Amino acid sequence: MDPNTLRINGRRLRESLETMARFGATPGGGVQRLTLSDEDRQARDQFVQWLKELDLTVTIDEMGNIFGLRPGKDNSLPPVLSGSHIDSQPKGGRFDGILGVMGPLEALRTLHENQVETLRPIAIVDWTNEEGSRFAPAMVASGVWAGALDKQWVYDRTDINGKRFEDELVRIGYKGDIPAKAWPVQAYYEYHIEQGPILEREGITIGAPKGILCLHWYDIYLEGEANQVGPTPMEGRHDALCAAAEMILKVNELPERMGGNMVATVGEIQNYPNSRNIIPDKVHFTVDIRSWDDDLALRAWDDLRTDCEAIAARRGCPIRIEETWRVEHSPFDEGLVKRVLANAEALGYSSLRMVSGAGHDASYMNQIAPTAMIFVPSIGGRSHVEVENTTWEDCEAGANVLLHCLLQSANEPQA
Amino acid sequence: MDPNTLRINGRRLRESLETMARFGATPGGGVQRLTLSDEDRQARDQFVQWLKELDLTVTIDEMGNIFGLRPGKDNSLPPVLSGSHIDSQPKGGRFDGILGVMGPLEALRTLHENQVETLRPIAIVDWTNEEGSRFAPAMVASGVWAGALDKQWVYDRTDINGKRFEDELVRIGYKGDIPAKAWPVQAYYEYHIEQGPILEREGITIGAPKGILCLHWYDIYLEGEANQVGPTPMEGRHDALCAAAEMILKVNELPERMGGNMVATVGEIQNYPNSRNIIPDKVHFTVDIRSWDDDLALRAWDDLRTDCEAIAARRGCPIRIEETWRVEHSPFDEGLVKRVLANAEALGYSSLRMVSGAGHDASYMNQIAPTAMIFVPSIGGRSHVEVENTTWEDCEAGANVLLHCLLQSANEPQA
Repeated sequence: MDPNTLRINGRRLRESLETMARFGATPGGGVQRLTLSDEDRQARDQFVQWLKELDLTVTIDEMGNIFGLRPGKDNSLPPVLSGSHIDSQPKGGRFDGILGVMGPLEALRTLHENQVETLRPIAIVDWTNEEGSRFAPAMVASGVWAGALDKQWVYDRTDINGKRFEDELVRIGYKGDIPAKAWPVQAYYEYHIEQGPILEREGITIGAPKGILCLHWYDIYLEGEANQVGPTPMEGRHDALCAAAEMILKVNELPERMGGNMVATVGEIQNYPNSRNIIPDKVHFTVDIRSWDDDLALRAWDDLRTDCEAIAARRGCPIRIEETWRVEHSPFDEGLVKRVLANAEALGYSSLRMVSGAGHDASYMNQIAPTAMIFVPSIGGRSHVEVENTTWEDCEAGANVLLHCLLQSANEPQA
Repeated sequence: MDPNTLRINGRRLRESLETMARFGATPGGGVQRLTLSDEDRQARDQFVQWLKELDLTVTIDEMGNIFGLRPGKDNSLPPVLSGSHIDSQPKGGRFDGILGVMGPLEALRTLHENQVETLRPIAIVDWTNEEGSRFAPAMVASGVWAGALDKQWVYDRTDINGKRFEDELVRIGYKGDIPAKAWPVQAYYEYHIEQGPILEREGITIGAPKGILCLHWYDIYLEGEANQVGPTPMEGRHDALCAAAEMILKVNELPERMGGNMVATVGEIQNYPNSRNIIPDKVHFTVDIRSWDDDLALRAWDDLRTDCEAIAARRGCPIRIEETWRVEHSPFDEGLVKRVLANAEALGYSSLRMVSGAGHDASYMNQIAPTAMIFVPSIGGRSHVEVENTTWEDCEAGANVLLHCLLQSANEPQA
């Protein structure tokens, strides 16, 4: 048969997603499948069973990453890899992560039933703990695999009940004995919902992110002077919350001021003593700045810092700033991004070159292998919520693009 | 002797204050004497011992209020009453409350040692739980005594450990059997630190508040739309924290806009989900507006409400507003206020007619008896903090003013 005519089975993909959505199903129509929980274990067991039904070689490494390998004609060549994560946010949705595991599974099922052989092996992966909502931070297992994080440090992470990552990995029976250490990968594709509103708004089916935005995190600490509100006149007050309010609005205005595809957000604030009749004397808040242009993000921060220091000085509120985390923007492999766009076009789907604002396991994979992602629309741009949704047609479309990307990469001869 | 020449003993007053400061002394130089705690009991025991040493008639009512009565020539006439509270804020100071108990004690000691008789009896009172920081709300025992609050309701208040007010009252041995029910009072004087910066800033020794500001409390609830910050463009966001930040600044600008002696404060804010990479979708904050002019405060609220609704509409953040509590401004007895000012002048102290921004037990007393307060400067305007301070000279000055106010009111014949 002409492999160009191959299509995945949309109905079967939907059934796989619906089966997975039962593990940790919430009354609100989402899923709560926290990493290394019983629900995670149940979903993993189902996944492993499906891998075995396809005669894939299943291996589980010491981080609990699950690999299913389909041999190629020349198994000495580096395989093509695709995957994402089974774990979810608390009260998360039925697509984030799992679509990128069920998608390549469906692609391999399609190759299997059509007896399509590839030159190189193709592997699927479920990365442990992408979300980082039970054990912070996020994406630790792809991080260890890619050599960016230390295994023992991740093992020692604890959840809010003090349970260790490694102990929970052992408890659910997914601490394997294979080292979590990257092998050569010909190409890594991660299929994921967009988690933003752009594809839906533009009426586009397939998004091909050219990479992941840079990410700059800051923590700002302000001091004020606590006094009873009644007897303390307005003049002479040092109200740390008012200073913070001015700064929050400066953060919010930053992207429009700077131009470029920047987002800037204050998501977290703590106010002390947080009593309705005491002037706030201590405020902490976070700043998250993302952009495709690292320099623009740094210039934005310079401007913001100057503004914040001026506000602090004017209000007599000493300010302390921590530059908490900086990750440079991460451009994906241009050849693979073009391949995603070309396959969308060949399959008759509208497509858009875009950026990924969120981090993914693809971030770490991008450090060690040619990487690209395939996005499909998130209805209303919502994710990490129970109402997170993507149409079945779009799920099918993205899996077809993935199928042909995998096929083409898996048939590339060694350079 | 000419009673006009009487002066209290400043050294003895200081010693009394220093003794009391040992009960619940904190390493930071303040006191933590939460209501109905062991430290409160120790300080009460000392107070009762001092009352008895003066041969006062000590009674303890069912709210734990401690009265010490010094007979007059005609004990059928309503007594003059003065007092405040022994309890403190957590990490509070050495003057708030206790100065208004030690002050009249020193005045009665002065009358005693000078064998000065008065026409009417004079009583001192320690009101239980003025602060309300262990058992909310504040000023409950004067409230019950004045008939404004229900005794059983107060008994059932619990602290953060679930301990009941009444049980703790019994535990420390201060649940008396005298009904907590007001008797006729000729005049009530409460001597207190200012808790604001005005007297110190103006270089004035004695403040005579003409009354207590009105107090309006509001609770504002905003909804936004939670989304991951990275993939969600700025346009189309519904960020509840940004909406709140705009409103907080509107509250802060209100007094200048409205004129009059108004203060307006946001002391408390809750933000959800309060995660650095999720757009806030739920914010609650409080608004506290105080003014001598009830109508001005209402007009300010009208303006603020209009502004908040416009901000909420522009940002697409549904708003819900609760009008939580309104207390009208409470003018003290003009004759007693003038008496405070006249005595300050007669004693050679500078004085200022002002307002009280904070509530006091005097608020409830003002509902049932002619009431006035005597303020002395708070250094730096600070109170409810360990560094709260007032000079010993000012403590002495206020007690002298109180002494002569008590003397004059206690010698008033029945009208």
